[in-house]
Amino acid sequence: MDMDLLIEKITEEIYQKLRNEKSLNTGSSGGSSSNCKNSGFCNFIDHTLLKAEATESDVKKLCKEAMEHRFVSVCVNPWFVPLSRDCLKGSDVKVCTVIGFPLGATTTKTKVYEAREAVENGAKEVDMVINVGAVKSGDWDYVKNDIESIYMAVSGRALLKVIIETSLLTDEEKVRVCAICKMVGVDFVKTSTGFSTGGATVEDVSLMRKVVGSEIGVKASGGIKEAATAKAMIDAGANRLGTSSGVVIVCGACGKSTGKPAAAGTAY
Amino acid sequence: MDMDLLIEKITEEIYQKLRNEKSLNTGSSGGSSSNCKNSGFCNFIDHTLLKAEATESDVKKLCKEAMEHRFVSVCVNPWFVPLSRDCLKGSDVKVCTVIGFPLGATTTKTKVYEAREAVENGAKEVDMVINVGAVKSGDWDYVKNDIESIYMAVSGRALLKVIIETSLLTDEEKVRVCAICKMVGVDFVKTSTGFSTGGATVEDVSLMRKVVGSEIGVKASGGIKEAATAKAMIDAGANRLGTSSGVVIVCGACGKSTGKPAAAGTAY
Repeated sequence: MDMDLLIEKITEEIYQKLRNEKSLNTGSSGGSSSNCKNSGFCNFIDHTLLKAEATESDVKKLCKEAMEHRFVSVCVNPWFVPLSRDCLKGSDVKVCTVIGFPLGATTTKTKVYEAREAVENGAKEVDMVINVGAVKSGDWDYVKNDIESIYMAVSGRALLKVIIETSLLTDEEKVRVCAICKMVGVDFVKTSTGFSTGGATVEDVSLMRKVVGSEIGVKASGGIKEAATAKAMIDAGANRLGTSSGVVIVCGACGKSTGKPAAAGTAY
Repeated sequence: MDMDLLIEKITEEIYQKLRNEKSLNTGSSGGSSSNCKNSGFCNFIDHTLLKAEATESDVKKLCKEAMEHRFVSVCVNPWFVPLSRDCLKGSDVKVCTVIGFPLGATTTKTKVYEAREAVENGAKEVDMVINVGAVKSGDWDYVKNDIESIYMAVSGRALLKVIIETSLLTDEEKVRVCAICKMVGVDFVKTSTGFSTGGATVEDVSLMRKVVGSEIGVKASGGIKEAATAKAMIDAGANRLGTSSGVVIVCGACGKSTGKPAAAGTAY
């Protein structure tokens, strides 16, 4: 069966399943939300700093905060991977970086080169941007090959998250791309770059979780600035959060910022 | 003399020169503004389409328009270079693409790889983004090496324009980066990516022209949507314009959009 037919079939199956439910948003939360323990949000957070003007000093501070709060990773631009690796030496916090970011519109070869170099420099997680233009051109072979090429370049050495840039896609396109990601076997699908027309929504996270099932991660990113939003994303099925507000989220949640202890059951 | 001292010296000389003038904006227009003939804006315009969701069909239309209006180039993302090259075959319109775009925060090695691949795919002009974070970190050796590496990768095969992302820089940083560009010998300095906090301003174009003199080009880009703005940029010293509104600018200027003939002397 050729890939296009296979995707059609998978997409149809997924839509059939969705139609059989009351709505996209009433299902139970994703398989990984049970990870949300009293230990808090910390083990969900990629502590993120991707603005062009970020300095070496900013990245050192980011790494320090990530170690202090035991976040999963720091997410930085590729030129900061070596610095972050050095700063995080001896800790469990990983270096995450971004590939083809934020437009996703460079060539597959350049994305592969960039991903390989990032892994050689110490990245343990890479968040690549899909080729949105290829999606919009209906060139699904290109979309799949683009993702698969980066997957093959880093697989076994780093986790691959695939940023689908939800704000630019229709629901059908989101489903198709997630189906391709599942087929390729990537580690996460991720909602947004944070540099486009919108960020993560509960609806999108829920839809993405339903499509990929429990085997693949879902990372919500873009516009997550407070604990309530973070909790909503996890409840919708996210098991990773990309945010530049990690400290605020954690301190808000644990009461540090207000001097009050967190209420039982809201400690994440 | 080491590079830092040399830049200090050049910067001081430039500031001295500027202080001796009444203001940054009262000087005569740039050396290339005399290129602005009755033939219009066409020979200033890089017809630009860089949004992530641009499709193959959009790029074909862009190329057709560029040939029709005899623009200098089409400016597209790297994955569209081969398509643009094919579409423009036999015409004088060149393929321009962007490197490390729009954040400029990938590694120098990846920028070099991306630039080489673009040239091999048919790009005759490449617009690279500087490492803004390195500027803000005061790492001028990194900034210079980054620019110089891409220059060496493409020199003799394609023009190099250096996007300095003016909206993120102080005036002193703008002067320093332009001085470095002049020292390296790049072909153009360019104001903006169009994806940051601001676009081209008359003040910045004027400042950049004063720093680089008449030997290097100045490309104004970001937010140029109408003929009056285009004219103001050229009057300030720009000899290239990056805009996605090229057709509107040209048709507005020549009266096509209103059905009125252009007034004498305003035909660009």
